[in-house]
Amino acid sequence: MVSEADNPEFRIALEAFNSQPFTGLIGASLTRFGAGVAAVEVPHRAELLQQHGFLHGGVIAYAIDNAITFAAGTVLGTSILTAGISIVYLRPAGSSITATATVLGATRRQAVVSCEVHSTNDQGKDVLVATGQGTATIIGR
Amino acid sequence: MVSEADNPEFRIALEAFNSQPFTGLIGASLTRFGAGVAAVEVPHRAELLQQHGFLHGGVIAYAIDNAITFAAGTVLGTSILTAGISIVYLRPAGSSITATATVLGATRRQAVVSCEVHSTNDQGKDVLVATGQGTATIIGR
Amino acid sequence: MVSEADNPEFRIALEAFNSQPFTGLIGASLTRFGAGVAAVEVPHRAELLQQHGFLHGGVIAYAIDNAITFAAGTVLGTSILTAGISIVYLRPAGSSITATATVLGATRRQAVVSCEVHSTNDQGKDVLVATGQGTATIIGR
Amino acid sequence: MVSEADNPEFRIALEAFNSQPFTGLIGASLTRFGAGVAAVEVPHRAELLQQHGFLHGGVIAYAIDNAITFAAGTVLGTSILTAGISIVYLRPAGSSITATATVLGATRRQAVVSCEVHSTNDQGKDVLVATGQGTATIIGR
Repeated sequence: MVSEADNPEFRIALEAFNSQPFTGLIGASLTRFGAGVAAVEVPHRAELLQQHGFLHGGVIAYAIDNAITFAAGTVLGTSILTAGISIVYLRPAGSSITATATVLGATRRQAVVSCEVHSTNDQGKDVLVATGQGTATIIGR
Repeated sequence: MVSEADNPEFRIALEAFNSQPFTGLIGASLTRFGAGVAAVEVPHRAELLQQHGFLHGGVIAYAIDNAITFAAGTVLGTSILTAGISIVYLRPAGSSITATATVLGATRRQAVVSCEVHSTNDQGKDVLVATGQGTATIIGR
Repeated sequence: MVSEADNPEFRIALEAFNSQPFTGLIGASLTRFGAGVAAVEVPHRAELLQQHGFLHGGVIAYAIDNAITFAAGTVLGTSILTAGISIVYLRPAGSSITATATVLGATRRQAVVSCEVHSTNDQGKDVLVATGQGTATIIGR
Repeated sequence: MVSEADNPEFRIALEAFNSQPFTGLIGASLTRFGAGVAAVEVPHRAELLQQHGFLHGGVIAYAIDNAITFAAGTVLGTSILTAGISIVYLRPAGSSITATATVLGATRRQAVVSCEVHSTNDQGKDVLVATGQGTATIIGR
């Protein structure tokens, strides 16, 4: 991965990412983009919690969905749709999260992508919060 | 299903649903709750879209996640965690959506739930936008 | 659903089903096919068990995979590939199983299908053993 | 990973694996077991194909199911059940396959595991055929 300044594709991806109104509502950032990998960070904000004080599962699902789509975009280009995702929730998240998606393989038409969501627990230790698997396909084929 | 006024469990579920800060940020409503079924409605709002003007996949995932969790709650009670969900995106959604989740079966410890997300297309016709399958398990067993 | 004798499409589907060598190895039958529904039955055979005497999860996965593919075939035709499946195992199965798949929706290119696997427990009662969700897509588009 | 001869746990796992009647019917081998990883190999046999001459999706699903279960067993012990799996089929497989499963994370009660299924294509090149994600949980908790 290279920094945004070095990589025109990262800049284009950032423009697309930041032009998503829902991403603005969540307050997420695209922190990695390139060579089959994309990472989405979601800050700890009171508006993103469920009734027990943990990050809402829907926020974790958003991060996985978006990270998988952008990771697929690094190999398939920008005209893609996410066809489906599977999510396993391992632990509740009480702090900010980072969803890092990695392309496992691709054909001309689709990419299969895995995703790990990490957070920091009460002891300041990095923990795996959730995992995801998904596919994206090129539009119009 | 009975109306909220007739059903104390629906009132308790609504309190839990409406006390989720993220649900407030989305602006969703719990419109059905009881006997293995729960429905979550998300209005069409500009803040919920992605860069092409469709509802963000993360919003659909939120609705599926929450509908599955509350449907499971109708048979397992309130001390549950959603263990995982699988989502298939069939069509982009350009209007409000309703995610209706139905418990397919349950043991003492877990429930398996399916979910359909419907929207209205440009011709005013009801269309299936996405489907989901998930499980919820009782906490502490 | 109509019987095999009444339905040429069912006969064509049966020929395809019965020409699968792996289906012969398992000993499965296609017992329903038509109008968005397909059912696959797997008999109770000692060769299909795992080490604890229950039906192997892989046999259940086979039945779900095949039922989903054939159900999709009732709406998309025969030139299809199963793109993915998600399986939830709810209970071990100790007897024969029937996997019944139902198309939930379809576009011109793909169908999304759900599947329920039922068995009979020790008390002779019908029980839900597993559920599945999957998609099939038309080849060459 | 260590070899079978060096590792009593691998020998115990092999006994369990080889005592599965369905594994005998398939003709599969457990070729890796230890430290969060398990690999299942399935030979190319005519009995395992579907009607177009490719490996049946149900065989791939079996390999993913079993590899995920045994990988989870390296961290959770032998009293486990596979709770669910999600499979993405990327390409048809025309030769033998190896499903390699890796534990991504675990709590005291469950493990989340990813799996890659590789094969060899007509040009003798290693290709990714399918991927899987699954969870296993300890029995009786």
